[in-house]
Amino acid sequence: MTRPLFIVFEGIDGAGTTTQSQRLAKRLQQAGPEPVLTREPGGTPLAERIRNLVLDPDAGDVDHVTELLLYAASRRQHVTELINPSLASGKPVISDRYAASTVAYQGVGRGLGIGMTQTVNNIAVGATLPDITICLDLSVEIASTRRLARGGKEDRLEQAGPSLQQRVRDAFLAMATDDDRWLLVDASADELSVHETIWSALQIRFPAFPFTKTR
Amino acid sequence: MTRPLFIVFEGIDGAGTTTQSQRLAKRLQQAGPEPVLTREPGGTPLAERIRNLVLDPDAGDVDHVTELLLYAASRRQHVTELINPSLASGKPVISDRYAASTVAYQGVGRGLGIGMTQTVNNIAVGATLPDITICLDLSVEIASTRRLARGGKEDRLEQAGPSLQQRVRDAFLAMATDDDRWLLVDASADELSVHETIWSALQIRFPAFPFTKTR
Repeated sequence: MTRPLFIVFEGIDGAGTTTQSQRLAKRLQQAGPEPVLTREPGGTPLAERIRNLVLDPDAGDVDHVTELLLYAASRRQHVTELINPSLASGKPVISDRYAASTVAYQGVGRGLGIGMTQTVNNIAVGATLPDITICLDLSVEIASTRRLARGGKEDRLEQAGPSLQQRVRDAFLAMATDDDRWLLVDASADELSVHETIWSALQIRFPAFPFTKTR
Repeated sequence: MTRPLFIVFEGIDGAGTTTQSQRLAKRLQQAGPEPVLTREPGGTPLAERIRNLVLDPDAGDVDHVTELLLYAASRRQHVTELINPSLASGKPVISDRYAASTVAYQGVGRGLGIGMTQTVNNIAVGATLPDITICLDLSVEIASTRRLARGGKEDRLEQAGPSLQQRVRDAFLAMATDDDRWLLVDASADELSVHETIWSALQIRFPAFPFTKTR
């Protein structure tokens, strides 16, 4: 029996989760199985409305626990409205960020604690866990340079500065190390090299890749 | 040492939580301590924006866990932005609904379970517990008649119908029974009688009422 893969990209802001999830989706599309590419926070109309509430620089002093609960609400809607139905219909799902971002940004970065964030994550995601989480690792300095190069206004989390980003990077590294549900990738190379590294690693990890997972 | 009271009104839709919290606030204002009257979901600009997301009949198929997490986020912001600062500045706080509504509506009414709702509530409220929760008890039939009499469009929870309202009433009764942090009031009488019952009960429960609580 096979079922489609649920693949997640994680990393600090500027590490390339959006770029690499788009590249992987495009390649998967060419290779055969039509993937669903999505992102967090967001992914559904209601979840996007929640995302806009959280990331709005004009929202004022948003309490960190409020932020945690809003992300969790957005994630729950994403899971039930998009991720689960897509997997059930046989489509692989690629998500630009998922539950681990909450552990890294709110649990460690904001200092709420890993325990509280995991409790809330468990309620939000239920049994919908990624088959693999690809951690794009990059130094805070290079990530910052890339973010500035892409221009645009920084959102509230990015405004919080380099010290938060360093704690977030360390948190992702801690999760990605010695866990075979994670794939740790050096994201300092050029886009195409990083993509090829990911593609090869997925072929090694999943025998039927780029098609479905055998269970 | 004294500190101001935190008073909460709970009950099914139509039981009169809004009317009675307004009456109590007005009387407290005349009696001396300037109270802060607030409501849930809502109570602050961000919390009101979240409230609008949840109650919007056009929001489509909102998952029940999403709803739970959104209410919790709204509550957390309410606690940190309004309730805690008001109490700290010496003002009594009267809230039209609070954490028990989540246990009754989402935990029992929606069937998510009391355990999950209490876990989320605990994260949202921290140490900010009401000194007393006034349960306005009313039959589902009378409550429904009163709701129709006040007119207006029913929101998503009210559209869910009488069976949900009955489970919610039973849940409030179970919480209010044999718990001295609750006050169970028959809300079938006229507004003024119900108010007088509440006022007298508060005077008995708190020696310094209508002023502050002695600890």
